[in-house]
Amino acid sequence: MNDLIAPIAPIAPLHQPELAQALRVRIDQKTKPLGALGQLEDLMLTLGLILGTETPALDAPQMLVFAGDHGLAARGVSAYPSDVTWQMVENFLAGGAAVSVLARQHGLALTVVDAGVRHDFAPRPGLVIVKVAPGTADALDGPAMSVAQCEVAITRGRQVLRDRPGNAVLFGEMGIGNTSAAALLLARLANHPIEACVGRGTGLDDAQLQRKTAVLAQVLAKHADASEPLAALAAFGGFEIAMMVGAMLQAAQERRVVVVDGFIASSAVLVAARLQPAVLERCVFAHRSNESGHRLMLDALGAKPLLDLGLRLGEGSGAALAWPLLESACKILGEMASFAQAGVSEQSDKPV
Amino acid sequence: MNDLIAPIAPIAPLHQPELAQALRVRIDQKTKPLGALGQLEDLMLTLGLILGTETPALDAPQMLVFAGDHGLAARGVSAYPSDVTWQMVENFLAGGAAVSVLARQHGLALTVVDAGVRHDFAPRPGLVIVKVAPGTADALDGPAMSVAQCEVAITRGRQVLRDRPGNAVLFGEMGIGNTSAAALLLARLANHPIEACVGRGTGLDDAQLQRKTAVLAQVLAKHADASEPLAALAAFGGFEIAMMVGAMLQAAQERRVVVVDGFIASSAVLVAARLQPAVLERCVFAHRSNESGHRLMLDALGAKPLLDLGLRLGEGSGAALAWPLLESACKILGEMASFAQAGVSEQSDKPV
Repeated sequence: MNDLIAPIAPIAPLHQPELAQALRVRIDQKTKPLGALGQLEDLMLTLGLILGTETPALDAPQMLVFAGDHGLAARGVSAYPSDVTWQMVENFLAGGAAVSVLARQHGLALTVVDAGVRHDFAPRPGLVIVKVAPGTADALDGPAMSVAQCEVAITRGRQVLRDRPGNAVLFGEMGIGNTSAAALLLARLANHPIEACVGRGTGLDDAQLQRKTAVLAQVLAKHADASEPLAALAAFGGFEIAMMVGAMLQAAQERRVVVVDGFIASSAVLVAARLQPAVLERCVFAHRSNESGHRLMLDALGAKPLLDLGLRLGEGSGAALAWPLLESACKILGEMASFAQAGVSEQSDKPV
Repeated sequence: MNDLIAPIAPIAPLHQPELAQALRVRIDQKTKPLGALGQLEDLMLTLGLILGTETPALDAPQMLVFAGDHGLAARGVSAYPSDVTWQMVENFLAGGAAVSVLARQHGLALTVVDAGVRHDFAPRPGLVIVKVAPGTADALDGPAMSVAQCEVAITRGRQVLRDRPGNAVLFGEMGIGNTSAAALLLARLANHPIEACVGRGTGLDDAQLQRKTAVLAQVLAKHADASEPLAALAAFGGFEIAMMVGAMLQAAQERRVVVVDGFIASSAVLVAARLQPAVLERCVFAHRSNESGHRLMLDALGAKPLLDLGLRLGEGSGAALAWPLLESACKILGEMASFAQAGVSEQSDKPV
């Protein structure tokens, strides 16, 4: 089924041992004890390798929020009605949502992508309408989308990415019901029991969580044969996840920095990385979400996120909150003095 | 011994139940599931209560880096020679250190305070020379500072703070040997065995760590009677920690936001909070340091830090890295729409 997507050249691993070595030397010569900037030093290395330079600089960062509705939402898997998807898209565009506020704070160009919202939006700046259909089908009845729709979503995601400038993309999403799709993808692609993958989403109570888990177990059983990444994606949805998969593949191929928000955005990485493992080298994981399956998802991706603030909002809000750390990593690589430049004594062989 | 410091009016608890309630309502009405911004919501509440408003705004943030030398450094407790203290002060002022880069990035006014460096600095903008003495005495021979010196350091710290504008202060430090002083304060004031409080500082190996631990155990035994906060501070040092204690007390009294960097800055909070417990309500803990005693220190303070990036640099670098999160908290409180404003449906009583 992998042949259904528009051909994308294989994404090569970032095998740059000389650059990696040069970056390590550069980091170690900065005026600080070896390793004293912890995970920020790993981030410097990652950004240098993605952008192919010892002095990476982030340019025209794009915050893309992919939105779509889910047929499965009608089965009572969310605490909010589906209409909240389009209402929140309006809120993003009006500047009132968390991601709108954070994008303004950090100078991120915010674009909302209608991947498949059950609503007709008036066109306007900041909104890209590339809807595949007004919401996916109910995954308990059949696949959430057809193979052809899945291909369209991925292709349009690639195009959306190609149309944006810059060398870094932050991925967020909105879609009532999409923690269900992400949990299903995690369960199927990483072989975890659904109970370990499902979470409270926007705020289910215990009984509602139990109901959601039962529904998702039925969906998994219904699509027992959907084991390949794209088959699982078509079976479980949604359009916003499929479009993120396409955009992430394109971003990775163009060697842009891919900043991954929470549980849903990570589920798109899971699919993309099963198709092209080198995508993972281009990813910076912004935070560990409070949605309970995210820990397993990050483990499946070998990811160590930057923040752990108990967020569970989506929208790209966690990616935006982590963004200044990426800028700090670049600035430290570029502007911080070495021991030699600053005339600071290096570590003694023995304590004095 | 508490009577030795210049009188400071008791710092009252921030008992504002009506404001706290109004802040909680405001946070809960934002267009997001209840609690979905996790620890950032706690931060909104904290900042609102410190600044006494539902719409806090951070004004003219001051990054203060207190520097001092330690007589104990001659006993081989650090991987770097004492001269690195003044060399790094020069680096801060020349703009080449991590904290210099980060302060520029985030618009933080950087001031280096010579609290007691073993070096004569040429006066210049950004440097406040209020040296108590050129380094503390060797705490293995006697107290690191006299009672009179401790009083002078605290008083000068208060004055430094009074002289700065703004409503938020980020506390950093520099001082070869000061993880020893902080570990001693933690061991004495929180009653932990020294082995649990001591760490590798700027990068000791196993044998050096063993030696540091043995030296600190001797220092603790030498000053077995220094159990009160100020007696312990005088016994163990350093001038930069004592000056931070004064500045923190003053900042708390003026209801400024106190942003605490790592292990050393936290040791100053430990002393300040033993003198005036309400200081803690004015503190935002920026990060959990990789210095091994910091976890115990944070537990002793009941603190839940924002970042956990394995940093162990000091200088205020962790405080600067966390700063955008404080700005985000304020902007979200001020700019994010409520459900009513945005016309977004609230949570269903039952899943639909």
